[in-house]
Parts: sequence; C-alpha cells; structure tokens
Amino acid sequence: MTDKNPLRSHIASANAPDCDFPIQNLPYGVFSTEGGAPRCGVAIGDRIVDLAKAEEAGLIDAQGTFSQPVLNDFIALGREVWDRTRARLTELLAEGGAETIPTVAMADAQMHLPIRVTEFTDFYASKNHAFNVGVLFRGPENALPPQWTHMPIGYNGRASSVVVSGTDIRRPMGQVKGEDGPVWTECKRLDLELELGAIVGANSSMGERVSVEQAEEMIFGYVLLNDWSARDIQAWEYQPLGPFQAKALGTTISPWIVTTAALEPFRCKGAERVNPVLPYLEEKRPGFFDINLEWALNDTVLGRTNYNVMYWSSAQQLAHHAVSGCPMRVGDLLGTGTISGPSRDQTGALLEMTEAGKNPVEIDGGTRIFIEDGDSITLRGHASGDGYRIGFGECAGKVLPAQQ
Amino acid sequence: MTDKNPLRSHIASANAPDCDFPIQNLPYGVFSTEGGAPRCGVAIGDRIVDLAKAEEAGLIDAQGTFSQPVLNDFIALGREVWDRTRARLTELLAEGGAETIPTVAMADAQMHLPIRVTEFTDFYASKNHAFNVGVLFRGPENALPPQWTHMPIGYNGRASSVVVSGTDIRRPMGQVKGEDGPVWTECKRLDLELELGAIVGANSSMGERVSVEQAEEMIFGYVLLNDWSARDIQAWEYQPLGPFQAKALGTTISPWIVTTAALEPFRCKGAERVNPVLPYLEEKRPGFFDINLEWALNDTVLGRTNYNVMYWSSAQQLAHHAVSGCPMRVGDLLGTGTISGPSRDQTGALLEMTEAGKNPVEIDGGTRIFIEDGDSITLRGHASGDGYRIGFGECAGKVLPAQQ
Repeated sequence: MTDKNPLRSHIASANAPDCDFPIQNLPYGVFSTEGGAPRCGVAIGDRIVDLAKAEEAGLIDAQGTFSQPVLNDFIALGREVWDRTRARLTELLAEGGAETIPTVAMADAQMHLPIRVTEFTDFYASKNHAFNVGVLFRGPENALPPQWTHMPIGYNGRASSVVVSGTDIRRPMGQVKGEDGPVWTECKRLDLELELGAIVGANSSMGERVSVEQAEEMIFGYVLLNDWSARDIQAWEYQPLGPFQAKALGTTISPWIVTTAALEPFRCKGAERVNPVLPYLEEKRPGFFDINLEWALNDTVLGRTNYNVMYWSSAQQLAHHAVSGCPMRVGDLLGTGTISGPSRDQTGALLEMTEAGKNPVEIDGGTRIFIEDGDSITLRGHASGDGYRIGFGECAGKVLPAQQ
Repeated sequence: MTDKNPLRSHIASANAPDCDFPIQNLPYGVFSTEGGAPRCGVAIGDRIVDLAKAEEAGLIDAQGTFSQPVLNDFIALGREVWDRTRARLTELLAEGGAETIPTVAMADAQMHLPIRVTEFTDFYASKNHAFNVGVLFRGPENALPPQWTHMPIGYNGRASSVVVSGTDIRRPMGQVKGEDGPVWTECKRLDLELELGAIVGANSSMGERVSVEQAEEMIFGYVLLNDWSARDIQAWEYQPLGPFQAKALGTTISPWIVTTAALEPFRCKGAERVNPVLPYLEEKRPGFFDINLEWALNDTVLGRTNYNVMYWSSAQQLAHHAVSGCPMRVGDLLGTGTISGPSRDQTGALLEMTEAGKNPVEIDGGTRIFIEDGDSITLRGHASGDGYRIGFGECAGKVLPAQQ
C-alpha cells in the first residue's frame, strides 16, 4: 500500500499506526455498557461509536436497525446501505467531522456475538492443512481427497455453539476409540483451528445457484474464527458422515466484523491452482486478501500465517454452497477452514504443529502437545496498509476443565 | 391397543376409524386461509381448529403464541403448557364440548412450515439402511462403521432447505465423478429418504450434557421427513467431511407435528441391541413408537416399514447431540435417519431398493431406478389404536427438471 498520508480521525487513538481500528477500518460489532441493552457499534481507535444513539441523534440512518442486539437486520438492508453507511461514518469520524458523535470507551463496553448465526458451515481450504491432517488421519497415500482440488469441501457445523471472544470453553466428554470398543473420557486432544469466517449478507433463493461474482457481493465481512476441535473424539466419530460432536463444543468468533469494503485494498491471489476448475467456481478476479494472522497459546505466539495461502476463497465456497439450490441467508457464517502455511510455525492447529502429539511445542513456562485446562488461545489478524492497518482485534477463549 | 370405546369428537369426520386426525391425535401445524396471515392450528378430522381465534375468544390460553406464523414460541412455553393445552383441546373437542370452537375446513387452508427450523441434524439409525448403503458406497467389509453400534452417528444438515409438504423440489446440478476428474451434470441418481423428524421443544445450555430421560422430555413431537438425496453428487463429495450439497437440495416435512403425548400409547422397543452402550446412552424405558410407515412414487406404494426397526431413538440421538456440551434449542429438527426394514420392500430409499440401480422397481406405468422429473414422492404414517389411529397425514413433493 502506498497511501503515505492516510485519512486521519478526530478520535486520536485511531491514528496510531499499530491501531487495529483506524478510520479506514470501521468494523461492526454489538456492545453493551453497564445497565444498557446490547446495541450496534463501530470500532474507532480505543472507542466504540454508539450507532443506536447516533441514529437517534439523526447523525446516521439505518432504518432503526442499530438498536437491535444483533447486526442481522442492518446487514439485511443490503450493499447500498452498507456503502452509504460507511461513507457517512467516514465523514463523521474524519478530522473535521462531527466531534459530537456518541462514543463509549472500549474498556467500558462488553462485547456480544455480533450476529445471530443463522447457520454455520466450515470449510477445508488450505492445501497444507488438508494434506497434513489427511496424513495423520488416513496416511500419506489417502491424505488429500481426490475431489479436494475440484471443489471447496465443507460440512455443516453447529450454529448454536458459536460464541463471542472471551467466552470460556468447556473441555468436552465423549467417546473415543479404545482397545475393545469405545471409552468414555474427557477429551485429551483438544485443539484450535485458526480460521477466518465470512458473514453472508444477502439471501439466495431455494433452487437457484449463485455465481462467484454474486457470492462476492453477498459477503458482508469477515471475523476471526477458532473452531475448537476434540481430535480424539473426531477420529472415532467422523467416518462416514463427517465431524459432529468433536466440533460442537464451541466455535469462537471475534466481536468485530471487518467489512469487505475495508479489506478491498488488500485483495490478492491465493495458492496456485493445480488444475482448472469447473466454470461455476471460476473467479474473474483474485478472491483473497493479504491478511497476516497469528495465534498464541497463553502468552506465546506459536503460529504465524496469511490468508493468502488458501486455495478456495469464501466467494467460491459460497457459490459451491448454493450449487445444489441450497438457500443461503443473512447471518450464515462460513468458516474458511484452518489457515496453515507450509512450514511448522505457519500451521493453524496443534494437531499439525505437533504432528498429532509427536513433537511438543515450547511455550513460556513449559511445552504442549494439545491444549490443557486453563490455557487460553488467542487469534489476531490484520492487513497492513502504509501508515495504518486494518485489524480484527482479538478472538480469545480459555479452556475450563471437563464436567465428569 | 384395547380401547374398544375410544373418545369421540363432536367434529364427526374425526370419528372415522381411518381418519389420521381423531381427538386422540391433535397434531399442531401452521395454516392460512385466503387473505389471512399464517397462524397456529390443530388438525381434527377434516378441519383445523383456528387456535389464534380460539385464544382470542378466550377458549384457550397460550400467552398469545398461537397468532405467530410458527409454533416455536408456543413450544418454548414448555411441557406443562403442552399438557394443559392438550387437555383443554380434548375437553373442547370431545362430544359435548364447545361446538362453537372456531375451525376451518382443511380443504380451504394452505399449510406452512410448522416451525422455524433452528438447526437440522440428520442421523443414520437403521442398521439395515446403514449396512445396505455402506455396501454400496464402500463394499461389504467396510459397510457398517465400527462405531455404529456404539453411538448414533449423525451430521449437521442444512435448515434453510427444509420445506413443507407440497413444495416442489428442483433436481440439482453439481459435480460428479468422471473418468478424468469431475463432470458438471444434473443429478442422475435422485433419491428419497423415508424418515421421521423429532422436534426439539426445550433449550439446553452450552457446556452441559443432557440425559436420555431429559432428552425424552425435551421432544415436543414428530413429523414425517423426506431427506431428498443426490446420490451421484454424494458419492463424489462425501469423504472425508460428510454429505453436503447432495443433501441440501431440499428436505420435506409434513405440516402436522404429532406430539409425543399422542404417541405415548404406542411406545415400544426398537431393534435388538448387539452390544451394551455407554451409560450416557442407556434408556430406562423403550424409546420407540409403533408407527407404520410407507412411501409411494406417484401412485405406487413401494416401501412399507415401521419406526420400530430403528436402533437409536430420537432421545438417544438428542442426548448424544449434546454430549460435547453442544446447546440444543427449541425448533431443532432431528431426522431419525432412513427407516429401512430388512427386506427389499421395507427399504426407505431407492438406492437400497434398486441396489444402486441394478434392480429397477415396477410402478404403475413403468419402472424406476431413481426419481425422474415430474415424479412425486409421498410419505405416510400412522400408529394403529383400536378403533382409531394417530396419523401424520402426508409428506409429499414433486421433482422439477434441473436448471442447466
């Protein structure tokens, strides 16, 4: 990026070069302050614009949707309203803009799930991850499924267990494979998955397909997403119908939805395609964004990667999701799949990083093969502009002991 | 059943012995009449009790929920309200009851999806079906997965494509396996799956498990369910993460939810257990119902079976669904899985009945290996009392040609 004099805000904290939430970002979330109801807001520096109050004050118009406790109704208003609202917020928050715009300090706010998650789908779109995990579950000769380079493989996950950053995650109990049949146990191979999640912002109709171009227009924005995974439960349950309870213990998303509009300057190509794709999956322009990602176990950053390592974009995933005529809806959450680069320190899951427990990783004060009780996992991500960055904030969760 | 003098209704059509909707049944649905908004009703004979009007008239009290266009809010009131409402409706509709209760003719009503489907999960709980399909997809030695007799295997389906009986289903386009990679085609192996669906009527909390006894109490009732399946798309896509677009073209449910209370006299055991189950899946009493089921292709009934052939009950499936702490919610729909008995004419899918196309079935005016454009599939089911029956009505859908 070569914008040497980026636009600045009258909210001074937004102008620091390492601030996740400059005026170029304007991500949406849902917050509350003591005694108040959850309502919609936009992050700017270390403050949150109270969009409900801003609308009451006549500064902005979103048909009253900002007083809702989720962003679904605002998102459903459509791309024209998203664009107009972004332009108006930029005007209000720029230097010389409306210094009276109502804000609260982030430190005084509690963040909530930004959307009512209509349905949750998780994909499997990093070739490194798919290969690494395939080797561990099925051996090197069957590692990459034959259709992997021809379609974005995904599965329907559970929307009810999607929670906002900061929510504790309980280690699950379940069945795992024993010598003589299944054993009832707490999960002993609890893992993270570093992902982004695309938020679907428009409906499609049953029986209709969606082109990749239409799909791009339908995506409102992205969150960080940690798809907590119980690997021992997964290994026993997942054939032939896919992962189920191993993935239903919790999926954590960041409270801020970074809009596609804010990410647009960082659009880039993904991994090199190894074969042509069927026309319904062809992209007319690059479908990825140059987003640096990292994850930490407690205070130790263990993995650093970039969204641009992925093979299938969220737009391709959405087009594939609707290919059989499946209706897509506002609030659908599409996990990109674990984002792993080729080297060990670029992997987005402990299963890969420790080779299923064979090679422990070092952290401040110890080692780990999987996540232990009391551990916290934190995801972070940002796109780097010149003099500013488009950040996602944090997506964090702490693991509680199992309930026997 | 030995109730020689079953209770009779002042709605005469309800007293015919082959009527699906006698006073013993009282299934809930959502209907509209010309110019009116969708609202809640109960089937009685060939009429529908207008519950919204009955509540307005002070005949019944459900806290205003009956004027909603889905039953979720009523169901969320809980089992005590379900029981009290059933008792009150029985009183109002019995001979000598309130002949002024507002009803409309079924013939004048349009039926709607009875619930807003929160999430949809489909299981795989007929051993015959699991084995038969396993042989066709993976060969006889890997037919039944090793965990199959130890846990109810299921996968998350797509709630957005659940539709009410009478909705046309469009044949999907998609990828199937070709000689040299995937081929873009309309589905050539379109199939049905004869199932019941359990409607979850209470929430559970994240991080908490649900016992089988609690799960039984949480189930509001059952519908007929046809999980339309694109077998050629399924074969290419389903490994390793399970079926996805092959199952997202549509899932049809019957408009009437038959309550667990109405089915209680028909409680029975399912298939014999081949090994002990882990304590969290143990049942204190039989978990099935003696429900005769059939499916027809156009005018020809091809399959006849009974819910009592199943291995895992809906209560066990629900307990397993929450074992990792996954929150369950009012309006969740749990498909039982295809209900197939041991013989060919007891199978609930054409894949099994025709052995993946090898043995065509005869229908009036022709033969079929899979479903053709213009074909209708109709499911029916009822439990047989003495002098009455608890029927589900019909669950029907017609297949439209693919959109190329």
